[in-house]
Amino acid sequence: MSSCFNAIVLTLFPEMFPGPLGHSLAGKALEDGVWSLRPVDIRGFATDKHRTVDDSPFGGGAGMVMRPDVLDAAIAASYPGRGPLIYFTPRGATLTQKRVKELSAESTVTLLCGRFEGVDQRVLEARQIEEISLGDFVLSGGELAALTLLDAVVRLLPGVVGRTESLEDESFETGLLEYPHYTRPDTWNGMPVPEILKSGHHAKVAAWRREQAEDATKARRPDLWAKYLAAKPQVGVKKTDKTKA
Amino acid sequence: MSSCFNAIVLTLFPEMFPGPLGHSLAGKALEDGVWSLRPVDIRGFATDKHRTVDDSPFGGGAGMVMRPDVLDAAIAASYPGRGPLIYFTPRGATLTQKRVKELSAESTVTLLCGRFEGVDQRVLEARQIEEISLGDFVLSGGELAALTLLDAVVRLLPGVVGRTESLEDESFETGLLEYPHYTRPDTWNGMPVPEILKSGHHAKVAAWRREQAEDATKARRPDLWAKYLAAKPQVGVKKTDKTKA
Repeated sequence: MSSCFNAIVLTLFPEMFPGPLGHSLAGKALEDGVWSLRPVDIRGFATDKHRTVDDSPFGGGAGMVMRPDVLDAAIAASYPGRGPLIYFTPRGATLTQKRVKELSAESTVTLLCGRFEGVDQRVLEARQIEEISLGDFVLSGGELAALTLLDAVVRLLPGVVGRTESLEDESFETGLLEYPHYTRPDTWNGMPVPEILKSGHHAKVAAWRREQAEDATKARRPDLWAKYLAAKPQVGVKKTDKTKA
Repeated sequence: MSSCFNAIVLTLFPEMFPGPLGHSLAGKALEDGVWSLRPVDIRGFATDKHRTVDDSPFGGGAGMVMRPDVLDAAIAASYPGRGPLIYFTPRGATLTQKRVKELSAESTVTLLCGRFEGVDQRVLEARQIEEISLGDFVLSGGELAALTLLDAVVRLLPGVVGRTESLEDESFETGLLEYPHYTRPDTWNGMPVPEILKSGHHAKVAAWRREQAEDATKARRPDLWAKYLAAKPQVGVKKTDKTKA
């Protein structure tokens, strides 16, 4: 049986993969063939005897730039011709859970990890490569972005997280941050769990959690809260069904 | 000589560390003692014979929650009592390069990686733990967030990236996305590099790059562009010195 999700990762550090994704949920799913991972060593596509993959930037400046010809040869040999072809760069569109969900529905995703100052712009344009940024910070290369994106995607594949329900309430699914969690012991360090959570009253618990999620979003992420209000003008009105807007 | 940056990572998967950070720049710096990494197995602080670290959530729902007592014992034994103590959660403040830079100036940073649905809220409050989110997406645990944050921090440590200059122009340093890069061959796939970059005229190259950075930021990240305009009202006016605003 072929995997339902296949990742191809072009990198100068194939030994970084699967790395952390070889353990825990993602590792088990990898072993079980739920997904597959194929690292491709970009250096294998260098054509000189020193296996050079980079060169100085035109216009000067520090750092090196990955050559378009080498990268393009690696893509030509590895990209299956369909499915997203993604390059990680701070210049890209910021990754969201929405894009993660879309990617989890693809059968093949090809990820391109840059190093040094980045890759030659022409190969990004010629191949119309999608540019994604993990966030507004700078990494030493695309590898950790690729691993992180794959972790987010793989947990959404069928059967990877034990019960489907535990994906439903989580942050961003509802447009809100998640509510706080409590478990045993029921009093710890002098702090009891909120009484309502022990009431057994399902609707009241749900209402309390919704309120907590709204309060946290309002306080911590005014940007998300504004989007939430814009999308759902009836905040505070009791939800009567589970139909997505 | 002791390391200039020490990371302590509390996790249920110590075998994930250093993982990708054992290679390339971060791996070399780790070997050279520029930074140190100490994974702490949270499970070692469970007190029952099954080494239980989690339990069902009060109030019901799918998934498990990490127990406050076990986590607190792990923190008590590992946290040196100074330096940031960080928990990764989508509920946290979104990570920025500014925070990354601040963290790179710390001597010790303690990172707490959650799994399952998350950790009991009371331990976060009792320990006044800083909550950080990598971005608006959901991971299977905090480990990839920790690895990613450490990658971003370690590259800023003295001597890790070859020449200091290559940290200066990059995205977010100037409030702008970075300009595009070009290297050899000077015509590739029928596409020449922009003529200006071969002019040898340093000031014109700098002006072109600035314009490219501004255009990219305007087109791709109107949110950053607005902040940039607010912080630097003299956009378009030639910069006459390198003093930071």
